[in-house]
Amino acid sequence: MAEQIAGNTRAQAQRSPEELVLIGYLSQIGSISDAEFDQIFKLIKVRSYKKGKYLVREGGPGDTCYFVLRGCVRQFYIVDGIEKTTAFYTEGMPVSATFVYDNQASKFFLICNEDTMLIEGKAEDEKKFFAQMPRMEMLSRVGVEKELQKSHEKMADFIIKSPEERYLNLLETRPDLLDRVPQYQLASFLGVTPESLSRIRKRIMVNAR
Amino acid sequence: MAEQIAGNTRAQAQRSPEELVLIGYLSQIGSISDAEFDQIFKLIKVRSYKKGKYLVREGGPGDTCYFVLRGCVRQFYIVDGIEKTTAFYTEGMPVSATFVYDNQASKFFLICNEDTMLIEGKAEDEKKFFAQMPRMEMLSRVGVEKELQKSHEKMADFIIKSPEERYLNLLETRPDLLDRVPQYQLASFLGVTPESLSRIRKRIMVNAR
Repeated sequence: MAEQIAGNTRAQAQRSPEELVLIGYLSQIGSISDAEFDQIFKLIKVRSYKKGKYLVREGGPGDTCYFVLRGCVRQFYIVDGIEKTTAFYTEGMPVSATFVYDNQASKFFLICNEDTMLIEGKAEDEKKFFAQMPRMEMLSRVGVEKELQKSHEKMADFIIKSPEERYLNLLETRPDLLDRVPQYQLASFLGVTPESLSRIRKRIMVNAR
Repeated sequence: MAEQIAGNTRAQAQRSPEELVLIGYLSQIGSISDAEFDQIFKLIKVRSYKKGKYLVREGGPGDTCYFVLRGCVRQFYIVDGIEKTTAFYTEGMPVSATFVYDNQASKFFLICNEDTMLIEGKAEDEKKFFAQMPRMEMLSRVGVEKELQKSHEKMADFIIKSPEERYLNLLETRPDLLDRVPQYQLASFLGVTPESLSRIRKRIMVNAR
């Protein structure tokens, strides 16, 4: 992406799909000029990883933040030897659970579920970034507040909805996940067994006829 | 609280219990001087409410942020006519799910479960606050990031733990809740029926003998 951003300020039509993912995300938070986007793209670090790459392992350091430009990152825990998937991060999503304060070791794994392109940043990168673009600190706070709101809503959904309602909700809000994620991971994410998920899907198909 | 903060900078020993709650919370995020705390206490709005007061209602505006100095705020949804409790906010906790962006109506209720003392702020108060104390914007971002991390961990707990494990976790991390919250609300919060919670408690008591 670096070579694409050299030179003058560029209109949105000239941006790459990955740049548009970040622009789309940031534009929801606040108004950012093309010149500011150029500066942002100069400051961020973009990395590409193959499917199967571990970004974080249980017990390892959790000192890096990620934002998904392309692909899918899966978060999971290992409980009694069994993988429990707790999140899928896809295009336009900050992988917001990774920053570990107080130097704790990570309790979970993060793996690239597909070939994935990410923005990566450690605390010191973030510090430098905000020093160069102080207005982004405010936007970042608002962005994190929105993520927190979403996280609370997801939590509430888990308490108030049945697995079937959660599946229907996913069908509505993240239909792409159903095609790009193996069933056993999706079942785990919904808090049910693969057999239960299979029954839920059948029931929904019958009702939809 | 206002009259207590007039005059000179005050040492921690002279602070009220409620002031110490906020000092304790902010000190976990970053280093703040006594003079800065004085300024903070001059800028914030503190309100007291009686038990039973609704702060937010389903369908109403969600334009105010809260931080609990004393008491307990409960978040619940009404699903098919039944209350589903999704959070308890007690001393030292920001009620972080309240800020609704894009002028959406609130999907849930917030009620004071006890006589409660809160810091209250609307978006414009926050703006004024950060204009007067710019360093707090950064600390606020870090604070919200920590809240987000906690929220993700809670979410993961809900996926990976059984109701009994969640109850044991609560016993360890928030033992005060068990005494100050009615059983049916606690059961709802744990995602089980009151009867299941009762069985879980009996099982744990038998195992503890």
